[in-house]
Amino acid sequence: MHKVGFIGLGLMGSRMAPHIINAGYPLTVYNRTASKADALKELGAVVASSPVEAAKSSDVVITMMTDAKGVEAVLFGENGVVNGQHDGLVVIDMSTIAPDQSISIAERLSEYGIPLLDSPVGGSIDSAEAGKLAIMVGGDEDLFNIYHDLLSTMSQTVVHVGGQGSGTAIKLARNLAVAAHAESLAETLALAAKCGVDIDKAIEVITGNPSLTSGVVTRMIGQIEADDFAPRFALQNLRKDLDLIIHTANAMDVSVPTAAAMNQVYNSAVAQGYGEEDFTFVYHFLRRMSGLE
Amino acid sequence: MHKVGFIGLGLMGSRMAPHIINAGYPLTVYNRTASKADALKELGAVVASSPVEAAKSSDVVITMMTDAKGVEAVLFGENGVVNGQHDGLVVIDMSTIAPDQSISIAERLSEYGIPLLDSPVGGSIDSAEAGKLAIMVGGDEDLFNIYHDLLSTMSQTVVHVGGQGSGTAIKLARNLAVAAHAESLAETLALAAKCGVDIDKAIEVITGNPSLTSGVVTRMIGQIEADDFAPRFALQNLRKDLDLIIHTANAMDVSVPTAAAMNQVYNSAVAQGYGEEDFTFVYHFLRRMSGLE
Repeated sequence: MHKVGFIGLGLMGSRMAPHIINAGYPLTVYNRTASKADALKELGAVVASSPVEAAKSSDVVITMMTDAKGVEAVLFGENGVVNGQHDGLVVIDMSTIAPDQSISIAERLSEYGIPLLDSPVGGSIDSAEAGKLAIMVGGDEDLFNIYHDLLSTMSQTVVHVGGQGSGTAIKLARNLAVAAHAESLAETLALAAKCGVDIDKAIEVITGNPSLTSGVVTRMIGQIEADDFAPRFALQNLRKDLDLIIHTANAMDVSVPTAAAMNQVYNSAVAQGYGEEDFTFVYHFLRRMSGLE
Repeated sequence: MHKVGFIGLGLMGSRMAPHIINAGYPLTVYNRTASKADALKELGAVVASSPVEAAKSSDVVITMMTDAKGVEAVLFGENGVVNGQHDGLVVIDMSTIAPDQSISIAERLSEYGIPLLDSPVGGSIDSAEAGKLAIMVGGDEDLFNIYHDLLSTMSQTVVHVGGQGSGTAIKLARNLAVAAHAESLAETLALAAKCGVDIDKAIEVITGNPSLTSGVVTRMIGQIEADDFAPRFALQNLRKDLDLIIHTANAMDVSVPTAAAMNQVYNSAVAQGYGEEDFTFVYHFLRRMSGLE
């Protein structure tokens, strides 16, 4: 079995890594705030004191960071993974970053003879906890086949989607639609409410047939009914993704008009202090934008 | 059983009216192009030669027209319904128009002592054919209760949502989300394709978990795979709804940024000659906007 290193034990990483050790893989973990590794230590993981130490004792290092800067820091920074380069070492980056960032990181890693799979995940902390993430992988297909079973410990679906950067691309593109399902429900409910429709009647109409009942819409309606917007996928993180979506669309000459509109809504929501709410809090934000709250 | 008049046998009306006669209601129909009434005549409907004739032999007149102008023409025009006013006559308008248009029509009808239920429908011609529309009703609740069973012959759900105009409001608001599910899938797939992701792999990722698999998304993916964009809900009709959505949002001070962005996309799609395609043709339109076709 592959010896696995896991770097980045935040909201998502801390819920993903346990599936790896529970499946029997020897696991070494690293997190800048060491206390976040305690739960994994109890499960039997070795806690490394630096990224390089995690790399030295692993065949494959998984990184799960907030942004490209974070990924670059643990790979190329002081005591970074590349300093632990050894025969056969592979990096799987599961962070959500832009395709051109993945490609740039892959190029820098290749100077050390280290291949990269860009393998971001779809799903919230609930999916991470349940081992039911969607994992989208870009990079060499043979390498993907070697690590398919490892990735499967954390996921419901693992799909190789194409060359380097394409895992990151479909992840971002998918989040465009996630944002749009939430945003359009919020706009729909604000418009209906302002026209005098009872909110519960509006929800009854929307859930009355399957046209609009995606997982995102169904979960958001549940949150509206329970008045619970505790962050499972924070609004400021989806704002970050919208920023990367616009960055990528601009770089590739792709026209994404609703993503551009949503980006502005999210900028304003973060500016007004709602960044740490769940992204489905756009329900209340759109009501406030329209004078309903 | 109520004697029913049905005016407007277009793509939708011609598929809705048969459910009424099949449920045993005496039915009189009228359509400007008389030949469109032939199929209903065979089912046993009486074919009226004018709206006033349909009104005179009915307790309730249903109108299913393309726009408010069409509704006003059959109600208030030459040989219009109001000229057949008699004790207990009721109008149920199932057309998709703006809330302020419904309210204005209700006011004009009230001068003749005729109450109105604004009762637009959600769903495509397939749902109309199957008798599985979603019907949203605004207006007097007692009147709604009287006609609930009649409306149920055509629908899966019939919901009274509030006062006059609120049926129209939730219908339009709901179509905002319908448009957004299609538009965001199109933007997602264009962005992914331009970044080198195989389209079938992108679809595999999107359908791999329930987050995005609304009825609209599932149907559109089926159409992409079958390359079949024959109109079930024509792009130019959803453009008309987006126009009414913006009109209503502006009148009511509601902020609907993605609806505004989609309105511009649909204007351009119609200008470029795609108005008679199914609205899900935005898949190809967004690809063309991004130089992929």
